[in-house]
Amino acid sequence: MPATPHVEKHFTAAATVRDVVIGMSDGLTVPFALTAGLSGAVGSTAVIVTAGFAEMAAGAIAMGLGGYLAGRTDVEHFEAERARETQETQRVPDLEREEVATVFRSYGLNPAEAAPVIAAITADRERWVDFMMRFELGLERPEPARARTSALTIALSYVAGGLIPLSPYLVMPNIQAALLASVGVTMIALFVFGYVKGTFTGLRPLRSAVQTVLIGGVAAAVAFAIARLIG
Amino acid sequence: MPATPHVEKHFTAAATVRDVVIGMSDGLTVPFALTAGLSGAVGSTAVIVTAGFAEMAAGAIAMGLGGYLAGRTDVEHFEAERARETQETQRVPDLEREEVATVFRSYGLNPAEAAPVIAAITADRERWVDFMMRFELGLERPEPARARTSALTIALSYVAGGLIPLSPYLVMPNIQAALLASVGVTMIALFVFGYVKGTFTGLRPLRSAVQTVLIGGVAAAVAFAIARLIG
Repeated sequence: MPATPHVEKHFTAAATVRDVVIGMSDGLTVPFALTAGLSGAVGSTAVIVTAGFAEMAAGAIAMGLGGYLAGRTDVEHFEAERARETQETQRVPDLEREEVATVFRSYGLNPAEAAPVIAAITADRERWVDFMMRFELGLERPEPARARTSALTIALSYVAGGLIPLSPYLVMPNIQAALLASVGVTMIALFVFGYVKGTFTGLRPLRSAVQTVLIGGVAAAVAFAIARLIG
Repeated sequence: MPATPHVEKHFTAAATVRDVVIGMSDGLTVPFALTAGLSGAVGSTAVIVTAGFAEMAAGAIAMGLGGYLAGRTDVEHFEAERARETQETQRVPDLEREEVATVFRSYGLNPAEAAPVIAAITADRERWVDFMMRFELGLERPEPARARTSALTIALSYVAGGLIPLSPYLVMPNIQAALLASVGVTMIALFVFGYVKGTFTGLRPLRSAVQTVLIGGVAAAVAFAIARLIG
């Protein structure tokens, strides 16, 4: 497959960071918003802790297994498309050769310049199909082992995130005090998480930190309002 | 940009399907698992409904805004990488030209065949950078308008999913009966959703349906066990 080791490594690191970001941003936000919402509507920290941990388990499993299946689907999708492309180079080679030519025409090559390139690429079926996968479909071969790692990373990040807003309700019997402490530690955690996320993804860290705090704040405020209205 | 309209259309449809899948699979699963978990631990449907709606709001906002920011990040990441590549073709043109040559060498072209292709691609800076973006970095230009559409699609799909497991608790005063009804309608919804998802993503629909039901079932069972243990 025509990709340098440098590129592959870049993608793997990015994928892990992405999984941590996916799991932790929801893990910090949803259990926080749910428990904050409930604290305005129910009278017992026991119910809030129960709901918070039930949500954390449900969210971690749903997102983790979801990530696992998404990873498996990527692998299967790639293999299915690759098999289809391979068949097409056998069934309608002229059409597929013309698709290679179209790519090079779009880069400004004239037919005489393009001819040897097309001949070289289509001389080897593996190479030909690799080229079509990348150029026609924009698909990279996914790593088969990623699905499992991805699932675990997402689920553990969700739990790690969720424990932060829940911890005050575990140790403080007074709901009002626990809510304030939960808001405090979660806002700090969202800020730090957003800042680090920004550094990793190449955005301005401070803007990323503020955005992350805002998402958590808006989600919690709406959950609070809705719980108050219903409860 | 060297991409056929056919390819662009394929990607947009896939992105919308992906957003619905992201929102609805979590929307069907997490509120279902949370309310099922709570129904084994608390004695009032009012608390379950409050927690369910607070979770639905928190989840929809967290996922929707998260999707919005992810979309914006994709656009900014692409623009930043593109600016960097453009600079590199100006600062170290020989190195960048060599990277184009490496790509064609990996497809089996000899230097004499590759020379005119490299010359044609590097003759136009836009084309050159487009080529590097796609081949060296594997990046496609994201649609700028997608972030907002993506956010709305994810959030609404989450709410649409969440209303299904919550509805029995709204109309049935008996917790045990509401739980059974919620399990019933949600399992059916997960099955249908998984089946349709499988059809869209090109997987075997029945397998997709069973997997989706299993994720919801496992998440709900663990949430139920945890809520029972704590509550």
